[in-house]
Order: sequence, then C-alpha cells, then structure tokens
Amino acid sequence: MGGDFAPANILEGAALALSKLDWLDELVLVGHQEKIAFYMDKLELSWHPKVRKVHAASVVEMRDPSTAVLRGKRDSSMTVCAKLLRDREVDAIVSAGHTGAAVASSTVLARTLPGIDRPAIATIMPNMQGRFVLIDAGANTDCKPFNLAQFAIMGECYYRLVFGVENARVGLLSVGGEDIKGNEVTKETFKLLSGMPLNFIGNVEGNTIFEGAADVVVCDGFIGNVLLKSCEGLARTVMYWLKDAFTKDPIRKTGAMLAKNAFRDLKEIGDADSCGGAPLLGINGVCIIGHGSSSPKAVYNAIRVAGESVKYRMNDMIVKRIAECGINLEKKNLAEG
Amino acid sequence: MGGDFAPANILEGAALALSKLDWLDELVLVGHQEKIAFYMDKLELSWHPKVRKVHAASVVEMRDPSTAVLRGKRDSSMTVCAKLLRDREVDAIVSAGHTGAAVASSTVLARTLPGIDRPAIATIMPNMQGRFVLIDAGANTDCKPFNLAQFAIMGECYYRLVFGVENARVGLLSVGGEDIKGNEVTKETFKLLSGMPLNFIGNVEGNTIFEGAADVVVCDGFIGNVLLKSCEGLARTVMYWLKDAFTKDPIRKTGAMLAKNAFRDLKEIGDADSCGGAPLLGINGVCIIGHGSSSPKAVYNAIRVAGESVKYRMNDMIVKRIAECGINLEKKNLAEG
Repeated sequence: MGGDFAPANILEGAALALSKLDWLDELVLVGHQEKIAFYMDKLELSWHPKVRKVHAASVVEMRDPSTAVLRGKRDSSMTVCAKLLRDREVDAIVSAGHTGAAVASSTVLARTLPGIDRPAIATIMPNMQGRFVLIDAGANTDCKPFNLAQFAIMGECYYRLVFGVENARVGLLSVGGEDIKGNEVTKETFKLLSGMPLNFIGNVEGNTIFEGAADVVVCDGFIGNVLLKSCEGLARTVMYWLKDAFTKDPIRKTGAMLAKNAFRDLKEIGDADSCGGAPLLGINGVCIIGHGSSSPKAVYNAIRVAGESVKYRMNDMIVKRIAECGINLEKKNLAEG
Repeated sequence: MGGDFAPANILEGAALALSKLDWLDELVLVGHQEKIAFYMDKLELSWHPKVRKVHAASVVEMRDPSTAVLRGKRDSSMTVCAKLLRDREVDAIVSAGHTGAAVASSTVLARTLPGIDRPAIATIMPNMQGRFVLIDAGANTDCKPFNLAQFAIMGECYYRLVFGVENARVGLLSVGGEDIKGNEVTKETFKLLSGMPLNFIGNVEGNTIFEGAADVVVCDGFIGNVLLKSCEGLARTVMYWLKDAFTKDPIRKTGAMLAKNAFRDLKEIGDADSCGGAPLLGINGVCIIGHGSSSPKAVYNAIRVAGESVKYRMNDMIVKRIAECGINLEKKNLAEG
C-alpha cells in the first residue's frame, strides 16, 4: 500500500513477477483488500494459484513517524508484512513505502541476525568503472564505529552476491584520504576496519567514489541518504540543463536529434528501476526497500532481488563473515571499556 | 605556496588581479622568495609598485595535519599569512592550500568574530533556479546545534552580499522534510532555527536542494564536504559518460559537433573558477579558500571576492545579525543547562 503509486504499480510489478519468475512459489499480497480489488481483478491476480491475499486495514503515510508501525498503526500493511517475516510465513518482504517504518517494523519484529546490532540499507550506484555499493543509504541516522564496521562486512557480502566478486575493496567515506582526516566516528571506524580480515582500502572521498575508488563505500545512514538523494537530484538537474542547452537553437536541436541514442544510453546508466530496490541487510529474513516512486519494472526487480537473496543464502554469508571478523566481540569490548 | 599548481597559478592570478582590480591598494605575496623569484620576474611582479614580498620558509603539505601551522611549521606561508591578518597588516588572505590548515591558522591567530564559536566555509553551488549557498563546506567535522545555527546566519549574510537579496530562505540539510526527521544534531538545530528571526523554511533534502528549495543550505562540515566533492565527482562522471555516449558512432559524433555550444554552456554552469574561492566566514578578517587545483582565473576571482568582502563590510553584517538572532546567548544557556 505504500509509495507514490500504490497499489497500481505494486500490483503491476507483482503480475510481472508472477509471469517471469518461475521459481516463485507464492506471492503474498498484503493490503486493504477492498481498496486493491479493482486492480487485482484487472491484472488477473485475484484467483491466481500462486497468490495469497492478506488483509491490512491501515497504511503508514509518509508524514507518520517510523514508530507508527509499532504503536498507532499495528494493522498497517507494513506491520502485517513484518509479522509474516517474523513468523516465517514468508522468506522475504518488499515495500515501496515509508523507509523508516520498514526499517523499524522489520528490525523489531523479525529481529537482526546474530552479531548484527543494526541493519543497514545497501544501494547500488554507478561510477566510471561500473557500479559500487553504498551502505548505509538511510536506515540509521546516528551510528557508532562498530555499526559502521558491521555495515562494511554486510556490504562486502552483498557485493559478492550481486557481482560475484570476492574480497571487494571496502572504503570508508570521509573528508580526506589520510587516516587522520574525518569526524570522530569515522576516525574510530578507520581503526576498527584496519584490524579486520577485510580488503579495507582506507578513506574514500565524495569525488573518488565516482572514479571507482572502492567497491563498497561505508557511511552512516544520514550521510548515505543525503549523498544518494543529492546524486539523484544533481543527475536530474544535469538532464534538465542538458535539455535546456540542446534546445536553444535549431542547430543544437538537430545535433540532439542525431544523437538521441546517446541520451537514451545516459538515461540507462542512471536507471534505478533495473536495481528494483535496496536490501535492508542484517535482518533475520530478507527485506527489500523500493523507491517511493517505484515503477512496475522496479517492483518486479525488487521481487526478483528478494528471491535471489533467499536463493543464494546471503544471510548465512553475513553471519559467517561477521563471526570471522569478530566485530561483535570487538563491539562488546568497546562497550565495556 | 599551497595547492596543486603553486606558485605558477597563484602568481598568474595575482598578476591578473593587479591589472584588473584598480581598487587594490597592496598585494602581499607570501612564500619562499627564492622559489617564487622565477615566476615573479617572468610576470613582472618583482618590482610592481603595489606588490609587497614577505618570506615564508616552509609549506604545509597535503599530508600534514591541520595543526602543523601552529606547531611544526610556524614559518609556513599559511601561518605567516594568518599572522599578517591577525596584526591587521592585511585586510584579507587568500589560499589554495591545505583547507584544514587555513582554517586552523586563521581561527587561532586571527580569532573569530564576537558571537561566533567556529568559522564555516560557505560555497556557492548551482541549482535549477540559479545558485545557492552551502555552509559549512568543510571547516568543522563535528558540530553542535548552536554551531549550525550560527552557520545559518553567516550563510544568510553571505547570500545577501553575493546576490543582493535580503531574507534568504534558509534550509537545514536532513533526510526528510518533516521536523521529526534527521539525526540528533539536526533535530536540535531545527528547534533553534525555528525560534530565530530568520527566514527558516525547515528541512531540505539532497534532491530538493538542486530543485532550488533553499537559498542557504546548512549542514556540518563533514556532510558539506562529502556533498560538495560528490557533486564535483558526479558532474565529472556525467561529462565522461556524455563523451562516451556521444562518440559511439559517426551519427552521434555529428550530432555532438552540431551541438558543441551546448556542451560549452553545460561546462560553464559547473565552472568553479568563476567563484574563485569559498570564504571562511566568522573569522575576524577575511579569509578566502580556493580549490587545490585553482586556475589563474580562480585565484584572480578569489582575490576579487576577498576585496569585495572587505568593501561591503560583510563581517559587520554578520556581527549585527548574530546579535539580533541572539544565538550566542542561546548557546551559553544550552551549555549551562
């Protein structure tokens, strides 16, 4: 029920997933059944053999606090989803709604994996070399160094899942390359990461991440969210400037027409829909968070990514790597020290 | 002596300033006199009637800690510059060197303005509507709410100086529009700003700042620096993708050739050289910090902006507005409470 174009886009994406993903056993559609009936019928989902319908009376609105899922709106589609995950009735959940509410409900209800204190959102971004993982893209606004160290490990696992590459280069987002540069939290995190069996390449900066300095870029969710949204905003603004610059006179317009495929290529690089959504890593279960303005294609891809995360046992990998890196022990020492 | 292309670009910029800015009374060139003699002679600066030469034996390197200017390298060009400012031998200083060192030396030696606890770097960035001021772009990595509130006032004054507009719309950079969204520091800052005689429009986000949501965007220097560098990095990356997309086949190449003025327009929007440098606001004196890779044009513009800041008495404006907003009192109450 969440997101800017719910339930239409969500259900269209669900229909796509049912037709394309033959490994899908069951798709549970959680929402206000009366309100979605029209689209369910239209898309022939109402009596689909793989569809199960679960009612949820309310919806978390964007203006609601994240905790609404646990207090005022415990009958929301978000809360009901998280309960299904907690009770192992589903392996994965997908939402295009209120990010904070999705984080709160799945963290509190499904709980975190052993060794993980807080989950984090991992998102894939383009750079000159290909793509990199940014973690945390918005789950935690205030982080301790051991949180960031755990994010680094989860990011490494996710990179391996998506790109099939082991030993990803992990960089810590800061304001200078040297270890003495940063704020109090990043300087401590630098020390923690340096002592872990991880391919830690040191600090990376806002400019170098786009040159391909690291495969995994670690930061707290406040900075990650500002960064992600700024890049979206700037990219959109550049396209606006481009359009403006290319329509100023007939000659430029002709040039733009000849090169129209170049614009299409450019749009594809920034196409968030092909990723579908960003996983909330560290949850005991799989939770994929989509953009509020998710298209049907984005919803389809989010469902696909959710299934793949289950299939390739990403959470087992995270638990194993966390134990290897000993970051949960480290954390306890710090807390006691 | 600082920056990637010192002393060549610095001195070329100085020569430009001397030829163009007739209101310039005296230009003091601080540096290792032997090392700069070649360029000084070549650019006919050595015996220029408006040039005064001051020797500085060492240079702060990028790998040095910011505190080097106060401990190991007290004879650096940066330290000598800050001393000239402290002793009122100059009205303003300009540097393209180590940002942290410039902040440390001018803060400690020249001190801050009455009512200002920490100075902040204000930088001008483009958006769809025109331009906005980002403050702090990198002077302080860890900030308290009253620091951010002071930055807001300084940003408002700078916006007025540069664009001649009173009552600038001040936004607080956060992860959601609502006042409940943010980290601990921004939530407290939101309350402080709401109580001040200031055109505070609330939280702004990474995407909305490029749509023109605010004239002044306030954040701590860690986030500001990451944001600034990310945008630089992404812009450069988009130009790289553009070039790639426009050279894939002969038709696209022809299109690009026809529209070459469009690319020129685009480059101009992102041209940092026309701003020259970013002021370190809140210092008792004027300090302009240039990009490490400053071109002669950028150095010239930094000198121009330095002179204009003195001419239009920006610091008097800041002191007056800080007193009106009562933020220094507010701060003391908070510290005592």
